[in-house]
Amino acid sequence: TIDADRLWSTIIETAHFGGTEKGGVRRLTLSEEDRQVRDWFRAACEAAGCTVSVDGLGNMFALRPGKDMTKPPLGIGSHLDTQPTGGKFDGILGVMAALEVVRTLNDAGIETEAPICVCNWTNEEGSRFAPAMMGSAGYVADLPVSDILARTDAEGISVGAALDAIGYRGTEEVGARKFSGFLELHIEQGPILEAEGLPIGVVEHGQGIIWYDGRISGFESHTGSTPMHLRKDALAALSEIVLAIEALAKAHGPNAVGSVGEAVIARPSRNVIPGEIAFSGEFRTPDAAILDALDKALQTQVKEIAARRRVDIRLDTIWRKEPTHFDPAMTGAIAAAADRLGLPHRPIVSGAGHDSFHLATVVPTAMIFVPCKDGVSHNELESAKPEECAAGANVLLHAVLAVAGG
Amino acid sequence: TIDADRLWSTIIETAHFGGTEKGGVRRLTLSEEDRQVRDWFRAACEAAGCTVSVDGLGNMFALRPGKDMTKPPLGIGSHLDTQPTGGKFDGILGVMAALEVVRTLNDAGIETEAPICVCNWTNEEGSRFAPAMMGSAGYVADLPVSDILARTDAEGISVGAALDAIGYRGTEEVGARKFSGFLELHIEQGPILEAEGLPIGVVEHGQGIIWYDGRISGFESHTGSTPMHLRKDALAALSEIVLAIEALAKAHGPNAVGSVGEAVIARPSRNVIPGEIAFSGEFRTPDAAILDALDKALQTQVKEIAARRRVDIRLDTIWRKEPTHFDPAMTGAIAAAADRLGLPHRPIVSGAGHDSFHLATVVPTAMIFVPCKDGVSHNELESAKPEECAAGANVLLHAVLAVAGG
Ligand SMILES: NC(=O)NCCC(=O)O
Ligand SMILES: NC(=O)NCCC(=O)O
Repeated sequence: TIDADRLWSTIIETAHFGGTEKGGVRRLTLSEEDRQVRDWFRAACEAAGCTVSVDGLGNMFALRPGKDMTKPPLGIGSHLDTQPTGGKFDGILGVMAALEVVRTLNDAGIETEAPICVCNWTNEEGSRFAPAMMGSAGYVADLPVSDILARTDAEGISVGAALDAIGYRGTEEVGARKFSGFLELHIEQGPILEAEGLPIGVVEHGQGIIWYDGRISGFESHTGSTPMHLRKDALAALSEIVLAIEALAKAHGPNAVGSVGEAVIARPSRNVIPGEIAFSGEFRTPDAAILDALDKALQTQVKEIAARRRVDIRLDTIWRKEPTHFDPAMTGAIAAAADRLGLPHRPIVSGAGHDSFHLATVVPTAMIFVPCKDGVSHNELESAKPEECAAGANVLLHAVLAVAGG
Repeated sequence: TIDADRLWSTIIETAHFGGTEKGGVRRLTLSEEDRQVRDWFRAACEAAGCTVSVDGLGNMFALRPGKDMTKPPLGIGSHLDTQPTGGKFDGILGVMAALEVVRTLNDAGIETEAPICVCNWTNEEGSRFAPAMMGSAGYVADLPVSDILARTDAEGISVGAALDAIGYRGTEEVGARKFSGFLELHIEQGPILEAEGLPIGVVEHGQGIIWYDGRISGFESHTGSTPMHLRKDALAALSEIVLAIEALAKAHGPNAVGSVGEAVIARPSRNVIPGEIAFSGEFRTPDAAILDALDKALQTQVKEIAARRRVDIRLDTIWRKEPTHFDPAMTGAIAAAADRLGLPHRPIVSGAGHDSFHLATVVPTAMIFVPCKDGVSHNELESAKPEECAAGANVLLHAVLAVAGG
């Protein structure tokens, strides 16, 4: 079994890179804080005997040799970037547990058949640059590398420029590294395991995701002297869209969600009717047909709102990720590892997106979930217990031994 | 009659102080642009033979002597500050027309019985610092001067510091200057005069105004993995408030309006459910009882929304201005002046707030409205024709002669 204390102390130690007052982490992808944790990760992997290389999107690969170097390595890991007000576990647990697996194998003097590769994928969060799971999207060629490098953040800085700024545009060709499979440990980010008192979730499916960028153009005018029926109020139109997205998701429940995360009024003033608003929105569901239905219904409602309110509304689909179905042999290996360790488990659907969704399109892939407090994530209060993290890391260790051969 | 070309050229000339690409003006109160136009105004008034003084809130008074200097002057004027994306006429027409009245009297060698005082009131717009009509509020002691000086803008700069920064904290005691009456010319900022083809509105009433500052505290969490029924979405709560304000105003129509002008999500991210939003809102109606009813209904609905959505909502009333009823003798003088000039007119209610609302609480006061294009104001496209401005200035001139004695 892994060293639970060592795993916990790497999580606590690296949480200082971008650590916030409230105990969370603000480590936006390709920021200075991201550079710091990447430098730490590289040094820690090298100290554990791995060879580290970086590809053209900043994805980091730490290779631990196996007995049979003709076999492609088994990939394990996750991401080290966070939300603007994120927690200490989202992504981080998966990378630290993968490192802990390597350290445990070293301590036990175990050489696996296939090599093992610990991965840190670039921009999983999708908050600074859209879409999410960007590094792994490039890796599986779901998006062209040139397209990704040209994406910009709110300040107009491109992914390429941000990679150069922190010195993490590597020389390895994106996608050249081949794996035999991929395993990722992650906190659930939802309430199910905690509610059912289960330490392990075996992730069988991942929700499909659709992301929108929207812009409403009404007309700025005086809040006091413009009669109600002559207004073109962009904020009132947005309000209808927010509630429409919410109502559509609820109507397709319990396995659909939808929300608007960002909305910015251009040139706001108390006594000016909002004339222009930019916003982002999304739907998620494990069922592709429902994703289609939600998208279609929203587009129809947006058209109706625009016509009735005499405002222009652009609603662009900037990303669509189809639902993910993980590999039965890999989920079986995870369930068997949990059984061997005497850890109760259940199959589960991932509400959040993960790099494994992309990996699953090219190699046998699966994920292990552990509970987190109140199911809260994307919040500085995100929390998981040392023993919960350790249980997940032990399942990862045993699944790695089963899949890579140990 | 006034010199229509001279009036127009002062409007166009001063529109350069803060002029925008789209032909509007961005001249926030007490900004560098405001200092420039104030310097211009002081020089122009002095050149027209007036004595200019500034009070402790930056209100500017340009006195033209009369035959009987024991009589308090008749105040005329408006304001020179604008919205962040404002027009060339809102407030400005009233000050420039007052200056034009003085110039016309000079050219004609007319000395009025009572002195005349051209006024430029500080922060009428209420966009940088709340509330609106701030300088005149201090002048009539509707708000304590110390309270006003301590109000801050979004950057935390106080009114006092902003006055000092542009050198316009004057030495005259606020409220010490006494008037015998006050007259203000303004664009209507609404669609009625244009729709009815009338050049002059005689403003008999002003709407009551209530301004709110609100804050919604929900809970930030993951948009993908948080089930709909567990969310505390601050933006969804705001959306209901925006639509409630709109629906309440419509239900009390046609003479009630309501809207939300500002809304800012704290720490926004695409895949984070908005946890905290600050917003501003307002209602206006000429009927105090309806203002009460709107306020009460909103407070009730906000409580219901907060309870149902399990979010905290603070809704503070930061300003309430009772409806204004202008002086019948002053409105009569305006109507008579318009009749003398052969200009058709109608009584009208002011949708926007004006410094005259405050002046009306201490001296006989009234306002003249002229049409503006499509009723649009608080927009860079705000527009009025030279002949429309001249008609209003002529009515002002003749009303001044009647009231001040010429
Ligand atoms: N796991 C996780 O929080 N991913 C961020 C991308 C998303 O699901 O929005
Ligand atoms: N006249 C005018 O636009 N005043 C600004 C204050 C307000 O009415 O909101």
